[in-house]
Amino acid sequence: MIKIAIDAMGGDFGPVPIMDGLVSALKLNKNFTAIAVGKKDVLLPLIPRTFDDRIEILDTDDIISMHDSATDALKRKESTIYKAIELVRSGEADAVVSAGHSGASMSLATLRIGRLKGVSRPAIATLMPTSENQNTLVLDVGANVDCDAKNLFEFAIMGQVYAQDVLKLDEPIIGLLSNGEEESKGNEVTKETYEMITKSKLPNFAGNVEGSDIFKGTVDVVVCDGFIGNILLKTAEGVADTIGTILKKNLKRSLISIAGAVLMRKVFKSLKVRVDYAEYGGAPLLGVKSPVIIAHGKSNPKAIKNAIFQAIGAASSNLNEHIEEKLNRYKNNN
Amino acid sequence: MIKIAIDAMGGDFGPVPIMDGLVSALKLNKNFTAIAVGKKDVLLPLIPRTFDDRIEILDTDDIISMHDSATDALKRKESTIYKAIELVRSGEADAVVSAGHSGASMSLATLRIGRLKGVSRPAIATLMPTSENQNTLVLDVGANVDCDAKNLFEFAIMGQVYAQDVLKLDEPIIGLLSNGEEESKGNEVTKETYEMITKSKLPNFAGNVEGSDIFKGTVDVVVCDGFIGNILLKTAEGVADTIGTILKKNLKRSLISIAGAVLMRKVFKSLKVRVDYAEYGGAPLLGVKSPVIIAHGKSNPKAIKNAIFQAIGAASSNLNEHIEEKLNRYKNNN
Repeated sequence: MIKIAIDAMGGDFGPVPIMDGLVSALKLNKNFTAIAVGKKDVLLPLIPRTFDDRIEILDTDDIISMHDSATDALKRKESTIYKAIELVRSGEADAVVSAGHSGASMSLATLRIGRLKGVSRPAIATLMPTSENQNTLVLDVGANVDCDAKNLFEFAIMGQVYAQDVLKLDEPIIGLLSNGEEESKGNEVTKETYEMITKSKLPNFAGNVEGSDIFKGTVDVVVCDGFIGNILLKTAEGVADTIGTILKKNLKRSLISIAGAVLMRKVFKSLKVRVDYAEYGGAPLLGVKSPVIIAHGKSNPKAIKNAIFQAIGAASSNLNEHIEEKLNRYKNNN
Repeated sequence: MIKIAIDAMGGDFGPVPIMDGLVSALKLNKNFTAIAVGKKDVLLPLIPRTFDDRIEILDTDDIISMHDSATDALKRKESTIYKAIELVRSGEADAVVSAGHSGASMSLATLRIGRLKGVSRPAIATLMPTSENQNTLVLDVGANVDCDAKNLFEFAIMGQVYAQDVLKLDEPIIGLLSNGEEESKGNEVTKETYEMITKSKLPNFAGNVEGSDIFKGTVDVVVCDGFIGNILLKTAEGVADTIGTILKKNLKRSLISIAGAVLMRKVFKSLKVRVDYAEYGGAPLLGVKSPVIIAHGKSNPKAIKNAIFQAIGAASSNLNEHIEEKLNRYKNNN
C-alpha cells in the first residue's frame, strides 16, 4: 500500500485545507495511507476517528515560512517540510506533497532525496489548460532560471515520460518553446537544444512551438527554462484575471438582466474549472528519486486532494525507472 | 508638414486596407502628407481624387513576402519596403509605416537608416492592455533574441523616453521582467541589468516585475529580451483566444436567451477594444534615426490609421534626441 508524506502546516492558510484535502482523498481512494507532518495537537482534532488507522501524525512544529530563504531550510531539521522529505528519503513514505515554501521543497528534495541518474537538474512541471479537452504539460516552470541545452534536453525526456506514465498519454509529442515555429528561430540555447534533440532521434519531437501553442494544445509537452516558464505562467494568469475584471466591469455597466446574470455565472464557473490550478492539484518535481508534488501555497482542499492523487499516480508508476532508461538511451546519440 | 512613407503593398491582405487606413488618417489629420510605395496602377484607383494633393505614389512592384528571408530584403532594392525606408534615409519622408515582413523592415531600418548614438541594438516596443484605463509598453518584443545587460539597460531608457515623449506619460515607471519581485530574483542577465540600472541612478526604476504585472498596469514600461517578449505576446494572445473559445462553447451549450446574447455581444465588443492590436496600430522600432512603425501583417484600416498616427506622433516629438541624451547621461554612471 502506498504511503504519502504530507507537509500539513506549510500552506498559506494553515493546516485546515490540507487536512481536509487529505481526508477527502482518503475517502475516495482506499489504497493509500498518509503521514501528516505537523503539530500533533493542532492536526489531531482535524482527523475524523474513522481515519485514525490510515493517518499517522509525525509531531513537529517548526514551519518554513514564505519569507525564509530556501537555504535556511537545509539547516532547520525539525521543520515540517524537512521531516516530510526525510520520510521519503528513509523509505518510510513513497511520495511527498507540500504546499509550503516551494524553493525549500525543491532544495531539500534535490539534496536529501537526490537526483536520478543522468539528471543534471530537476524541473517543475505544470499542466496548462487548453480550449480542447486536454492539457499541456510545461516544464521547467521555476526550478532553474539559467539553463543550457543539456538541461532542456533532459527536461524534454522527463516531460515525455511523465506524460506517458502518469498522464497516460499515448506517444506524447514534445515542443520546444521558441519565438517562431521555423527551425531557424530561437535563441542560442534553444537552437542548440533543437539540434541536440534532433540528433538524439528522440521520437515525437515536433520542433519549435510558440507561446500560443500551449493553449491550443498543439503538442503535449512544452519545454523551456524556468525563468521563461515562470514568466509564461504569470502572464497567463495575468491575462485571465484581466479579462475577468473587464468582463465584470462591463456587466455592471450594462443591463443586468436575470437571464444575463445566470448565463454569466455558468460561463464563469466553467471557466474557473478550466483555468483553476485546483483541478490539477500540484506540480511534480521531476528528476528526483521519489515523487515530490509541489502544491500551490493557496491550495484549497480540492487542490490538495488532487495533488495527493498525483503523488499516488507517480508513486504507482515506473516513472523514475523510465526516465533513467530513456535518458541513457537517447543521450548516447549525442 | 510631416511626410509619412508607407509600404502600401506589404500587408497580408494587399493594398486595400492599407490605402483605406491612409485615407482615413488623412481625413482626420490635416497636418501631414504621404508617399505610398507600390504599384501605381493598383494604388491610384484606391485614392479619392480629393486627396490627390496629399498622397504621392512611388511606383514599384516588388514585394518582400512573408516567406522571404530578411537578408534577401537587403538585396531587393526595388521592393516596396526598401524604397519606403530609402525615402526616410534620404530625408524625403519623416517616418515610415510598414505592415510587411517585419524582419525585413527591422534589418533595413537598422542598416539603411542607422542606429542612434549609444544604441547597440534597436528594439520593438508594443502596448499591452490592462484592466485599468492605461496600457503597458513592453520592449523588446522580437528584434533581439539574445540580449546582454547593456542591451536591456538601453531598452529601459528607450522605453522610458518613448512613454514620456510619445505616449505623453508623466515620469514613466520602468520594471524589469523577472521571475519574482525580489531583487534576488532573475537569471544572470537580468540580475546584471538590475545592478546596472540601479548604479546608473536612472529615475523611476521599480525593480523586478512579474508577467502578471504587465496586465495589472503596475508599471508603465516593462523591459525584457526579444525572445521572452515574443513568447509573452503570443502567450497573452493564446490565453485570450482560449478564453474566448471556452466562453463561446459555453454559450452554445447553455440557454441562449436574447438578453444573454445581447449582453455577451456588448462584453465581447468591449473586450475586443481592449485587447485588439488595431487600437494601438503598430509597434515602433526604437533606436533608429527616424521613426519606423511596424504594423501587424493582418492590419485592418483602423490599425493602419493608428500606426500612421503613431508615426506622426513620433516624428513630431524630440524622441530620438532625448534617447541619445538620456543614454549618454546615465551610461556614464556605470
